[in-house]
Amino acid sequence: MSSIKEGIHDHLIELQEEIDCIFTAGRNTKVSEVNIGQIYGGMRGVVALACNTSYVDPYSGLHIGDYTTDNFSHKLPEEIFFLLSTGKFPEAESLAEFQNDLNQRAQVPQYVWDVLRNLPRDTHPMTMLSLGILSMENESVFKREYQKGIEKRNYWKYTLEDALNILAKLPSLAAGIYRIRFGNGVLIAHDSKLDWSGNLVHMLGIPDGDKSFADLMRLYLVLHCDHEGGNVSAFTSRVVNSALSDLYYAVSAGLNGLAGPLHGLANQECLQFILKIDEQLSDQVSEEELKAYVLDVLDSGKVIPGYGHAVLRVTDPRFTAFMKFGEENCSNSSCFKIAKKLFSVVPDILKNYKEGKIANPYPNVDAMSGSLLHHFGLKQFDYYTVLFGVSRVMGFCAQNILAQGLGQPIIRPKSVTNKWVLENLAVKKK
Amino acid sequence: MSSIKEGIHDHLIELQEEIDCIFTAGRNTKVSEVNIGQIYGGMRGVVALACNTSYVDPYSGLHIGDYTTDNFSHKLPEEIFFLLSTGKFPEAESLAEFQNDLNQRAQVPQYVWDVLRNLPRDTHPMTMLSLGILSMENESVFKREYQKGIEKRNYWKYTLEDALNILAKLPSLAAGIYRIRFGNGVLIAHDSKLDWSGNLVHMLGIPDGDKSFADLMRLYLVLHCDHEGGNVSAFTSRVVNSALSDLYYAVSAGLNGLAGPLHGLANQECLQFILKIDEQLSDQVSEEELKAYVLDVLDSGKVIPGYGHAVLRVTDPRFTAFMKFGEENCSNSSCFKIAKKLFSVVPDILKNYKEGKIANPYPNVDAMSGSLLHHFGLKQFDYYTVLFGVSRVMGFCAQNILAQGLGQPIIRPKSVTNKWVLENLAVKKK
Repeated sequence: MSSIKEGIHDHLIELQEEIDCIFTAGRNTKVSEVNIGQIYGGMRGVVALACNTSYVDPYSGLHIGDYTTDNFSHKLPEEIFFLLSTGKFPEAESLAEFQNDLNQRAQVPQYVWDVLRNLPRDTHPMTMLSLGILSMENESVFKREYQKGIEKRNYWKYTLEDALNILAKLPSLAAGIYRIRFGNGVLIAHDSKLDWSGNLVHMLGIPDGDKSFADLMRLYLVLHCDHEGGNVSAFTSRVVNSALSDLYYAVSAGLNGLAGPLHGLANQECLQFILKIDEQLSDQVSEEELKAYVLDVLDSGKVIPGYGHAVLRVTDPRFTAFMKFGEENCSNSSCFKIAKKLFSVVPDILKNYKEGKIANPYPNVDAMSGSLLHHFGLKQFDYYTVLFGVSRVMGFCAQNILAQGLGQPIIRPKSVTNKWVLENLAVKKK
Repeated sequence: MSSIKEGIHDHLIELQEEIDCIFTAGRNTKVSEVNIGQIYGGMRGVVALACNTSYVDPYSGLHIGDYTTDNFSHKLPEEIFFLLSTGKFPEAESLAEFQNDLNQRAQVPQYVWDVLRNLPRDTHPMTMLSLGILSMENESVFKREYQKGIEKRNYWKYTLEDALNILAKLPSLAAGIYRIRFGNGVLIAHDSKLDWSGNLVHMLGIPDGDKSFADLMRLYLVLHCDHEGGNVSAFTSRVVNSALSDLYYAVSAGLNGLAGPLHGLANQECLQFILKIDEQLSDQVSEEELKAYVLDVLDSGKVIPGYGHAVLRVTDPRFTAFMKFGEENCSNSSCFKIAKKLFSVVPDILKNYKEGKIANPYPNVDAMSGSLLHHFGLKQFDYYTVLFGVSRVMGFCAQNILAQGLGQPIIRPKSVTNKWVLENLAVKKK
């Protein structure tokens, strides 16, 4: 049996050997080019980063280590964090030890609640989550040890300590925010007999919560854990940590990125779209009626929320995993039924719409996730991005631990002005 | 006379015309390449971003619009923000209007103080600054209007509103943090008769503060305002805002990056180095003694804090501006004298050290700034990075306003794994 720390240690050795080999073969080998459109266009399509936690293949979707979604969607979030960080799933004994470690770190300091309760009552729950993490920055083990003076090769060990402390507190923090923001403000105590996502469900205290809701939450937290290194939130978190700002700073910054409408709010928009269909056409809507509705939306210049993804060229396997869950657990839910019907009509419509200009007509994960949360009683849209955040923090932490363990330097691309472009690329201004 | 809003509007039209012209001439023209070393090396040297607020030339240093440091170092921070955002300095009347506007927005809500006072007593002041901004996220005009539905071409106008609200409150917020963290916790009221940096000095309430300290603070806030788009803090702020997270999220995230030891803590390290020399050798140290001391430091494998800069190949003109200030205002200060003596010996030593491998042996701004702050009674090292932050928020805001005004999309480079590199670049693992 090996602990998560030993697992990361071994994984870093493997990754470093690969990098040594890559560098020996050609450190100066070109990986990609940046053109003018891309410096004004958010580096879209530029291969610019190495990230070994996960990889999104246009045809097979999210890979974590050697596993695809089908191979990891039945696991616990703790096992996924282990996989992200070490490249392997934990054996039973290692998992138990890891869960026990998290349970012992789970207590959120009282001052965090005092801070959160002093915010305006209508503060966004995502702001509360980011602020809750940032308020604990003073607890950073990395910062304390860095100030004493530590060797660079050991940075990751203290960052792992910070990661474990943050991850352990996340279910209590997120559930507490839900209770303060949407409930009566009375917190429910952490239960060390439950696992990480089980605790989140327990502490949310949603009435009539059944076994299926707990399983949905487990699945949700697994499926949103990581998505390469270039998405806004993970990239933000890595850029911040690359200056050796500790994980509290980095995780808070990453969550600030995830709060953006273009990033973490997509599942909210999808659900709103579905609820509107339910209201206007009901879940008994026929395929023909739904097709006409979708075409109307497209003709008015709008998009179908949840369809189309920058990278994927197939149905997001995470969507498929959620759909399977819905079939098995809530096939009579109105939202689920509409989401499923949309899936049966939208891709074909998009494929043929305006001469098939839409690169990927298939649904991504957001097209289903909100409907399921809503069905199980989690009806506060503003809270969905918090759950996304709770899950994605696993990716932030794993990416930063590995990057530090591999000695990756500060991230610092070069920017240029219009004037520079005009002068250096011999473009004459009209 | 044109307001800052009109000035930005006009500047955006100019910039957009330039970009149209650039795109017409060749959107696909290659600007740079990314090689394997760079994807593992923080994109160092990759031209990857367009940023029109400022530019750092290896030989003439920081440019803002058409101005170099010599041409803007005598200005007020408000004038600098105007320049960063509009490309022009304000006329007297526009400046007065802008200052008046800021004064009317200066009140920090009471809940911010309640939040900050509930943090652990020894929380880092930079964490307090970031958290103070984030705690006001609920006030975002951009978010409120975005939820109502606004046209993309008007995004920048609401982001400007947020920028003005944040900038206006920064002196009160930063000074309040100083009073809570290092003083007796009693806040000093904002004075609408003073300018932006004058208010910061007033509200810090440092005993025996004289006219020179106020001028130093003005100079400090001017010189640290912006440094292109690729540095960790500005880049973080832009990445977060590119997902349409509002400026409260983006500024807080940027400050989290600035908090990193590799980014915003350099002037602290420089000052510690100087104070150690003062303690061990005194400010009467001869040139020969100092040379021997510096060589000892280098031989022990350490660096001379504040010397060497990733981009500059000359003495940082911001260093020169601070040195001039020191000569005129505190030439008898021990710290200043030592900083000046270091400047007279270190570059020559570095040029010849180990066969001249050091690309830039000249000092950057950090080699002088801390010494001056210390001389004027600001002796809390942990606070220096807050001042850096107060200044740099101007750059964050201006960069994001312009990027939104030019419709720049979400920032989303692609990451790859070791496995991808090994497979796609035909490198065989040993």
